[in-house]
Amino acid sequence: MKLLFKNADIITMKDNHVEVLKNAYLGVNGSIIDYLSTEEPKEKYDVEKDMSGKLLSPGLINCHTHASMTLLRGRGSDLPLHEWLFNYMFPVETKMTAEDIKAGTELAVLEMIRTGTTSFSDMYLFPETTIKVVGEAGLKCSVDRYMQSFSLEETYEENGRGRESIELYQKYHNSYDGRIHVDFSIHAEYTCNEMMVRKYSEDCKKLGARMHIHLSETKSEHDACKEKYGKTPAQWFNDLGTFENPTFAAHCVWVEEEDIDIFKEKNVSVVHNPSSNMKLGSGFAPIPKMIEKGINVTLGTDGAASNNNLDMFEEMHLASIIHNGYHLDPTLMNAETVFLIATKNGALLQGREDTGVLEVGKKADIIALDLIRPHLTPNFDTIALMTYAVQGSDVVMTMVDGKILYENGIYYTIDPNRVYEDVREAIKRLY
Amino acid sequence: MKLLFKNADIITMKDNHVEVLKNAYLGVNGSIIDYLSTEEPKEKYDVEKDMSGKLLSPGLINCHTHASMTLLRGRGSDLPLHEWLFNYMFPVETKMTAEDIKAGTELAVLEMIRTGTTSFSDMYLFPETTIKVVGEAGLKCSVDRYMQSFSLEETYEENGRGRESIELYQKYHNSYDGRIHVDFSIHAEYTCNEMMVRKYSEDCKKLGARMHIHLSETKSEHDACKEKYGKTPAQWFNDLGTFENPTFAAHCVWVEEEDIDIFKEKNVSVVHNPSSNMKLGSGFAPIPKMIEKGINVTLGTDGAASNNNLDMFEEMHLASIIHNGYHLDPTLMNAETVFLIATKNGALLQGREDTGVLEVGKKADIIALDLIRPHLTPNFDTIALMTYAVQGSDVVMTMVDGKILYENGIYYTIDPNRVYEDVREAIKRLY
Repeated sequence: MKLLFKNADIITMKDNHVEVLKNAYLGVNGSIIDYLSTEEPKEKYDVEKDMSGKLLSPGLINCHTHASMTLLRGRGSDLPLHEWLFNYMFPVETKMTAEDIKAGTELAVLEMIRTGTTSFSDMYLFPETTIKVVGEAGLKCSVDRYMQSFSLEETYEENGRGRESIELYQKYHNSYDGRIHVDFSIHAEYTCNEMMVRKYSEDCKKLGARMHIHLSETKSEHDACKEKYGKTPAQWFNDLGTFENPTFAAHCVWVEEEDIDIFKEKNVSVVHNPSSNMKLGSGFAPIPKMIEKGINVTLGTDGAASNNNLDMFEEMHLASIIHNGYHLDPTLMNAETVFLIATKNGALLQGREDTGVLEVGKKADIIALDLIRPHLTPNFDTIALMTYAVQGSDVVMTMVDGKILYENGIYYTIDPNRVYEDVREAIKRLY
Repeated sequence: MKLLFKNADIITMKDNHVEVLKNAYLGVNGSIIDYLSTEEPKEKYDVEKDMSGKLLSPGLINCHTHASMTLLRGRGSDLPLHEWLFNYMFPVETKMTAEDIKAGTELAVLEMIRTGTTSFSDMYLFPETTIKVVGEAGLKCSVDRYMQSFSLEETYEENGRGRESIELYQKYHNSYDGRIHVDFSIHAEYTCNEMMVRKYSEDCKKLGARMHIHLSETKSEHDACKEKYGKTPAQWFNDLGTFENPTFAAHCVWVEEEDIDIFKEKNVSVVHNPSSNMKLGSGFAPIPKMIEKGINVTLGTDGAASNNNLDMFEEMHLASIIHNGYHLDPTLMNAETVFLIATKNGALLQGREDTGVLEVGKKADIIALDLIRPHLTPNFDTIALMTYAVQGSDVVMTMVDGKILYENGIYYTIDPNRVYEDVREAIKRLY
């Protein structure tokens, strides 16, 4: 089926900069964008959609979340980190079965589709369940089952995560028409030992997979690593060969100058999680410095338990303003930079060079926003509107690979009532 | 007319703490709440509204904005402060007529009604126009026309703001059934001289009016005052008699320990404007410390030009998380505190002790939120949901003084299409 969007404002790229076309046309052929211009196409499309007053943007890419933690939304607010983790998070997570992961992921998918996220990177449990839910709902996801090891006596084979990741990768990587990717994942320096990390990193390299890690989220974690090993977590991972794989590191709040140099040398991508870093009192990642040094900085929500929603527009807003406040400089984070962090850079991190930008030949991962709303009027600067004023609820259509998943209140690939029912059952089981 | 809300979750107060009633009833008689209980009332109401799945909350109170700056939304983003102000803000503001203020205020009112703000404090130009727009739209507003003086040769009488404020107060204070208040206002220390501030503060005291000021927003402003006068802006205002009036001070980013002691002694309320303070690179107001010292801290959006919207839920979210991040402490700002800052404390600041809380005998300034949404599911903690996850778009009804202004997409007191038309005309005139 060939679909033409007419009379839309469209965010595209020109000479490596964001450009907004006014009253333009975008054609979709199957899963691919096949036309983009301010001129009407001569060719006939099967379906034409008038998008007057609407803005088409690439879908947002959430590069670090734990989708099923929607089931822990709002639990144990405003407590010290240790108390929150050990009394409110871990006891529930320990009980979670594949059925719970299904309910939690469905709920996350519902929210992501509604608020304009078209692809996400998920670090959590029961990855096959996540793959099935996301695959069927039509979104894109890079899935992993993180490795951790709390016993020094456990062998790599006993731990089993290496074998599990290999099998998962071989079975599911690029499944569902390429919408599902499988990554390797190491939870963090403080939850693993050197032998495990070295072997797991080698297994990742053999397959050519990507690696998803938590890094220097809190000061105490960062300092404890230096105390224990005489090096920062980034240096530790680098020395163990982890960064020989295309790696993306979430948080990076406490990374040092030398760590950033390692990222640059090893092409490590960074996922900024501003809501979570603020709420949990972790601190301010040196995002402006990393951007200046040419690091591929991307954006994530982290899990709903520490956010408490999965709205990437909220993260864009925070990424736009908090660094200005922290460094007393209103020029630090400009709207274009933040927009690219949430789209193009995320696609690069996920190894999806065929998306993240609206251009002919790219995948049709498109969201439409209604601009005729009080808080979006007047529109002097569309990109500033996107980063400072738009909210997830302004999304009126979400399309992935040319297929409309949501439009004007209707979900086409997932039934909200069934999801709410599944969530109610999961809550009964878990609490 | 007597109206009963049935089967709603309702945020009320008990023993000075926020309490959420489940499946409760709230009755409205004219402009007043006359019933509130989990028991069904015996008395018959004229109209009953089933609110299953909805949450009733006191309307939010935006204690510092410049409503008509909606016409400057998104202008000159990401520039140094001086360039933004002198090249993008002032040239347009100088051209503004009452007709432009009408359009800009209408647009702000539309957004505020939509996102659950029931009362606001406005510091700007052409106050009579603002009064008329807000009065007719059914919202509550404390209006002023700020005093400033750039010439030392100008006399108080030549400046004219004192006379203007007195006349405005006498003509409009408590007009529109008490929904409109008139305040006095001094723009800031750096835009006035001592003689003007002293005389204007005396005039305010004669009438028993309230005083709205900007205070210590930026480091350079705060430091320049100390350089010039040998005292902080707060000490300067205090010495000139301003704080002999019930005063509320916006921003207070750079206030010092002794300034906070003055606020405490003189009962000065503080308006926290987190979006604006972050975006403009002003910094982090010592909000946790002021709360600890018992200052009446409230919340505001500032103008849309530095925000870029007027969504008080966004400000609640920011107030909840940024101080945790800045002080590396997740326990600093708890959900209940932030909720009260946005409601009860704002009512106190405005001298409206009859609102800000849902209780029998208070004004029916009520918003309803739809809780059956992906990002608000599950609901373990309603107040945490309100401060961390809810967005303005979750508001499905806004009621002021017992009158429904907005419900499910329909505005009952203002026509959005006419507002958009007025805004288009204003933009043509101004740019």
